[in-house]
Amino acid sequence: MKAAVIMGSKSDFEVLKKTINTLKYFGVDVTARVISAHRTPDEAHEFAKDAESSGYEVIIAAAGKAAHLAGVLAGNTALPVIGLPIKSSTMDGLDSLLSTVQMPEGIPVATVAINGAENAALLAVQILAVKYDVLKLKFKEYKAGLADKVRKADAELKAEVEGL
Amino acid sequence: MKAAVIMGSKSDFEVLKKTINTLKYFGVDVTARVISAHRTPDEAHEFAKDAESSGYEVIIAAAGKAAHLAGVLAGNTALPVIGLPIKSSTMDGLDSLLSTVQMPEGIPVATVAINGAENAALLAVQILAVKYDVLKLKFKEYKAGLADKVRKADAELKAEVEGL
Amino acid sequence: MKAAVIMGSKSDFEVLKKTINTLKYFGVDVTARVISAHRTPDEAHEFAKDAESSGYEVIIAAAGKAAHLAGVLAGNTALPVIGLPIKSSTMDGLDSLLSTVQMPEGIPVATVAINGAENAALLAVQILAVKYDVLKLKFKEYKAGLADKVRKADAELKAEVEGL
Amino acid sequence: MKAAVIMGSKSDFEVLKKTINTLKYFGVDVTARVISAHRTPDEAHEFAKDAESSGYEVIIAAAGKAAHLAGVLAGNTALPVIGLPIKSSTMDGLDSLLSTVQMPEGIPVATVAINGAENAALLAVQILAVKYDVLKLKFKEYKAGLADKVRKADAELKAEVEGL
Amino acid sequence: MKAAVIMGSKSDFEVLKKTINTLKYFGVDVTARVISAHRTPDEAHEFAKDAESSGYEVIIAAAGKAAHLAGVLAGNTALPVIGLPIKSSTMDGLDSLLSTVQMPEGIPVATVAINGAENAALLAVQILAVKYDVLKLKFKEYKAGLADKVRKADAELKAEVEGL
Amino acid sequence: MKAAVIMGSKSDFEVLKKTINTLKYFGVDVTARVISAHRTPDEAHEFAKDAESSGYEVIIAAAGKAAHLAGVLAGNTALPVIGLPIKSSTMDGLDSLLSTVQMPEGIPVATVAINGAENAALLAVQILAVKYDVLKLKFKEYKAGLADKVRKADAELKAEVEGL
Amino acid sequence: MKAAVIMGSKSDFEVLKKTINTLKYFGVDVTARVISAHRTPDEAHEFAKDAESSGYEVIIAAAGKAAHLAGVLAGNTALPVIGLPIKSSTMDGLDSLLSTVQMPEGIPVATVAINGAENAALLAVQILAVKYDVLKLKFKEYKAGLADKVRKADAELKAEVEGL
Amino acid sequence: MKAAVIMGSKSDFEVLKKTINTLKYFGVDVTARVISAHRTPDEAHEFAKDAESSGYEVIIAAAGKAAHLAGVLAGNTALPVIGLPIKSSTMDGLDSLLSTVQMPEGIPVATVAINGAENAALLAVQILAVKYDVLKLKFKEYKAGLADKVRKADAELKAEVEGL
Repeated sequence: MKAAVIMGSKSDFEVLKKTINTLKYFGVDVTARVISAHRTPDEAHEFAKDAESSGYEVIIAAAGKAAHLAGVLAGNTALPVIGLPIKSSTMDGLDSLLSTVQMPEGIPVATVAINGAENAALLAVQILAVKYDVLKLKFKEYKAGLADKVRKADAELKAEVEGL
Repeated sequence: MKAAVIMGSKSDFEVLKKTINTLKYFGVDVTARVISAHRTPDEAHEFAKDAESSGYEVIIAAAGKAAHLAGVLAGNTALPVIGLPIKSSTMDGLDSLLSTVQMPEGIPVATVAINGAENAALLAVQILAVKYDVLKLKFKEYKAGLADKVRKADAELKAEVEGL
Repeated sequence: MKAAVIMGSKSDFEVLKKTINTLKYFGVDVTARVISAHRTPDEAHEFAKDAESSGYEVIIAAAGKAAHLAGVLAGNTALPVIGLPIKSSTMDGLDSLLSTVQMPEGIPVATVAINGAENAALLAVQILAVKYDVLKLKFKEYKAGLADKVRKADAELKAEVEGL
Repeated sequence: MKAAVIMGSKSDFEVLKKTINTLKYFGVDVTARVISAHRTPDEAHEFAKDAESSGYEVIIAAAGKAAHLAGVLAGNTALPVIGLPIKSSTMDGLDSLLSTVQMPEGIPVATVAINGAENAALLAVQILAVKYDVLKLKFKEYKAGLADKVRKADAELKAEVEGL
Repeated sequence: MKAAVIMGSKSDFEVLKKTINTLKYFGVDVTARVISAHRTPDEAHEFAKDAESSGYEVIIAAAGKAAHLAGVLAGNTALPVIGLPIKSSTMDGLDSLLSTVQMPEGIPVATVAINGAENAALLAVQILAVKYDVLKLKFKEYKAGLADKVRKADAELKAEVEGL
Repeated sequence: MKAAVIMGSKSDFEVLKKTINTLKYFGVDVTARVISAHRTPDEAHEFAKDAESSGYEVIIAAAGKAAHLAGVLAGNTALPVIGLPIKSSTMDGLDSLLSTVQMPEGIPVATVAINGAENAALLAVQILAVKYDVLKLKFKEYKAGLADKVRKADAELKAEVEGL
Repeated sequence: MKAAVIMGSKSDFEVLKKTINTLKYFGVDVTARVISAHRTPDEAHEFAKDAESSGYEVIIAAAGKAAHLAGVLAGNTALPVIGLPIKSSTMDGLDSLLSTVQMPEGIPVATVAINGAENAALLAVQILAVKYDVLKLKFKEYKAGLADKVRKADAELKAEVEGL
Repeated sequence: MKAAVIMGSKSDFEVLKKTINTLKYFGVDVTARVISAHRTPDEAHEFAKDAESSGYEVIIAAAGKAAHLAGVLAGNTALPVIGLPIKSSTMDGLDSLLSTVQMPEGIPVATVAINGAENAALLAVQILAVKYDVLKLKFKEYKAGLADKVRKADAELKAEVEGL
C-alpha cells in the first residue's frame, strides 16, 4: 500500500510533516514530492498520469492561495485525490479551501480542513483500508487511542477545575 | 461493493438523486436513508456503528446549515465518509461547507463542493476502485466520456461563434 | 441548581475558566467535562441522555472549527444547550460560529459570541433564574456592578482626556 | 408561563408566525409586539424594564440588518433574551447574525439560526421548562414527533429510490 | 462648536486618542465619555436625548463586536451620529462594521472605516464646517497638508528607489 | 440649502428615487447627476472641485461594485460626502460597501447601509440641520412620524396575532 | 493581432458572447474554445504550450467555482493570461474570484471582475495596443464613446428627476 | 520599455520593492511614485493623462483598504493598468482586492493576488513582451528558473523526508 504526498511549495513541508509521519505510523509507503501545478506543470501532469502504474493508490495534494494542485492532479489520474488547503499569509485559508473543494462536476477532490495535516493522512488510511484489512484494524486502534486521550484529559480536568 | 447515501432531511433528495443514479450507473449497491444527526441521533449512531458489518464500504452524508451529519457518522465508524454540503436558504452554503469540512484532528470527512451531488458519487467510486478493479476501468471510461463531451462542446462552439 | 460545562478539547479550558468561575461566583454547581462529539461520541450521547436525570438543568458546550458538540448534545437532551463557539487557528471563529448557530428546525442551540466565555455563564444564570429567584437577585446585582464599572471608567477617562 | 415576541418591523411577522404558533402549541402565553430599537427606543427601554414585573419570563427579539433589538432589550432586563436574526435584502443575514450574536461581555443574547423562527420558540420552551415540568414533558413529545417524521420520511424514501 | 466622543468601552480609548486630538487640533470642543449601550443603557438614552440641548452638534460613537452604540444614540437624537467600528479580537472588525453601518430605514449612522479614528474626527469637522466657516478654511489647510506629505514622500521615494 | 446626488450609473436611479424624493420632502434643493469616477473622471473632478462654490453643502454619491465615486469626490472637495453602496449582480453589495467605507486616513466618506437610499437623504438632512434650524424641526417631526408608524403597526399586529 | 478566448464549460458562452463580440469590434482575430483544465487537461496543456507559436498574443480564460483554467494556462505559456471569474450557482462568484486571482509567485493571472465579460476583452485590447497603434486609437475612441453615453444619461436624468 | 509603479502610500514601499527589483531585473525602465487617489487627486489625474506621452507603456498601481488608485488611473489613461491590492491592518486584504478587481464595465484593472508584488512585475513584463521580443525570451528563462527551483526543492525534500 503506497501513497503520494505532493506539495505545491517546499514551505508547506512544515505542515505536511504530520501527514507523512502519520502515514508512516500506519505502515503506508510514502513518497513525498514538491511539484507545482503552475511552475512545473509537466511534472504535475506526468506524475498524475503515471501514478497508478507507479503503484500509488491514493494521492494527497497540499497547496495554498489559488490552490490548483489537487484539482490538476485529479484531472490527470483515476486515483482518489485528497486536497489539503494550506493557510497562507492572507485570506486565512479561505482562498485555498474554496480553490480546492469547489471542483466542477466530474473531477472530485476529497477535501479536508484547512491545515488539516493529520486528517489528510487518516483519510488516506481509511481509503486504503477499504482494500487492506490490516489498516482497518490499525485505524480502529488509532481511533480508540484518540478516545482514550480525550478520556484522560477529562480525568485531568477534574483536578484542575477543583483547583480554580 | 456497497455504499450508503444518508441525507439529513428528505428535502435534500432532489439534490441527491444524481448521487444515487451515478452510483447505480457504476453498478454500486446503494442504500439511501433519511437520518438526522439531531432529530434521530440514535439511528445515526447505530447506523454508523453497524455500517461496516452491514457490508457498506463507503458512506456519503449530505446535510445543510450546521451540517453535522457527516462528522457524526465519521465519529462512529472507521469507514471513509464523504461529506456533501447542501446549500440552504441562507448563507449560500458557506455554513454547510465549513460545518462539514473543518473537522478536528482525528476524524476526517472527505468533503466535496457545495451541492456537488455527482462528485460525491464519483469520489465514492474512486475510493471503491482502490479495491475493485472493475470500477477503476469503468471510472476511466466515464472520465473519457466527460472529455469527449467537452470536445463535442468545443466543436459546436465553433459554429456558434461564427454565427455571432 | 446545577450546570454542566462540556468542552470538545482540553485546549478550550483556557477560554472556559471564565465560564466556570462565573458560574461558581453565582453559586451554581458546575461539572466540567472534556467530551468530544467525534472522538468520544458514546460519552457525548450518554452524557446528554442522562443529563436531566443527573440533575443538570442547563448545559454549556464549547467547541471550535466544525463545532458539532452543542448540536449533538442538544439532539440528545431536552435541556437547554448553550453553544460557545471557540476561535481556532483559522477562519477567525466563523466556522465555529456557523456550525454552532445554524441549527436545523427542531433542535435549537442558544449561541453566544465567539469566545464569549463569560456570557455563556451569564446566559446559563439567566436561564436558571427563571426558576431560582436567588439567582435573579444576584444577576441584577452583577449587572449593576457592570454598570458601575462603566461609570468608573467614564470618570477616569475625564482625567486622561485632559492629559492628552 | 408567559413569553414576549418582539419584532423590529412588522415585515418580520411573516417569519415570526411560526414562532408565535409554536409557543401557542406549547400552551405558552404570548404577547407579540412591534417595537423598534431605533424608531421607538423609549418603548424598547420601557418594555424591557417592565418585562419581568409584567410577568414575562423570556423574551424573543427578531430583527434584521444592524439587528440591535435583542441586545437593547437584554441591556434593560434580567430576563433571558433570545435573538432571532432576520435575513434582509442584502448580505444574506450575515449582518443580522453578527449584530445579534457578537454581544460584549456582560449582556448575552441567546442567538438561534438566521430565520430560525421555530427554534426561537423551542428554545423559549426549553428555558421555561427548567421551571415548568409540564413543558418538559410536552417538549419531549414534540421531539419524539420530530423523530417520527424523520423515520416516516426515511420509509417513504425507500420507495422513491427504487423508482429512480 | 462642540462634539461628543462616546466609546462603548474604555479599552477603545487607545484608538480614540487620535479622534480626540484631531478634533482638538481643529479647535472643536470635545467631551469624551465611556457609555455602554448595553451596560449603561439609561446613560446612553439620557445622553443622546440631552445632547442637542447640551450644545453638542455632532456625536462620534465607537464600539466593537455587536456595535450597537452608534445606532442606539442615533435613535435618541436628531443630531448626526458618526459610527466608528472598532476591530475586536475576532472577525477582524467585520461584525463591528456591519452592526454599525447596516442601519434600518429612518435612522442613519455615518459610518467610517474600521478603526478609522482620524477620519471620524475629520468627518465631524466637515459636518461642523457646513455651519462654521472657520472650520472650512482650516479643513482645507489640513487637506493641503496631507497632499504635501504625499508629495514629500514621493520625493523621498526617488532616492530610496535609486538605492535599491 | 442645497444637496447634490451623484450616481455612477443611470441604472442606480431606481434606488436613488427615494433619496431624491426624501430630500425634496425636506425642502432641500437637489441636483441629481450621472457622473462616473471612471468613465467621466474629468466631470467628477470638476464637479467636486466646484461643488462648494456652486452652493452645494453636502454631496451624496451612490455607486456599485468597486465603488470609487464617493471617495473620488471626497478627495476633491472639502464638503461632507455621503457614500451609498449599491448592491450589484454579484457579491451582494459587500464589494460596494468595502470600497466606499474603508477610506484611508484623511479622506472620510460618511457611509450608509447597502441600498440605504432613504438614510442617505436623512443623513444629508441631519448634516444640513446643524446649520439650518428649520430642518432640525422638520427632521424631529419626521422621526416622530416614523415612531407613530411603528406604534400603528404594533396596534395592528395585536389583531393579526389573535387571528392566528 | 490574435486572441484566444477559452472557457471551461460551454455554459459560460452566454457570458462570453460579449467578450468575443467586443474583441471582434476592435478587429482582433478571435478563436473561442471550450477546454477544461480538469476534464481535458491534455488539450489545456497543449493549447497553452502551442499558443505563442500559433500566433496568439493574449489569452482570456473564463471559469467558475474552483476556477483553475486561467492559472493552468498561465503555467504553460509565456503569454499574458486574462482570468475572468464566472459566477456559478453558489458562493456568488467569490470562489471563482479567489481561485483565479490568488496565484502564487511566478505565475500571474490578470484578473477582471466577476462576470466582467466586456472588461476581459477591453483588457486584451489594451495589452495588444502596447504593440498595435491602431488599437490604441480605437480604444481611445471607445472610451470617449463610454464617456458620451454617461453624459447622455446625465442629460436624460435631468428630465426624469423633474418628473418625480 | 518603460513602466510606472505608483503606490497610494509610502508605507506600501516595503511590499513594492520586489516589484521594482523584478522589473529592473528584466531591464524595464521603472519610475516609482507615491501618488494618492484621494490626497493628491490632481497628481493622479495628471500622471495618468500624461503617462502615454511620457513614454510609459504599462502602469502598476498598489493600494490598500478602499483601493481606488488603480481604477482612478485606469479611468484617465488608455494604457493597461495592473492593480496590486495591499493587505492592510483589517479585513485581511479583502477590501483592497474587491475595490481593485470589481471594476465596472469599460474600465478594466488587471488585478493580481493580494500583496502579489512579484506577480505585478511579471505581468507587466508579459504585457511588454507582446511588443518586445527580448522580454519574451528573458521571461521564459525566468520561468525555467522557477521550475528549476521547484525541482531543486523536490530533490532536497527527499533527504529531509528520510530523516523524519
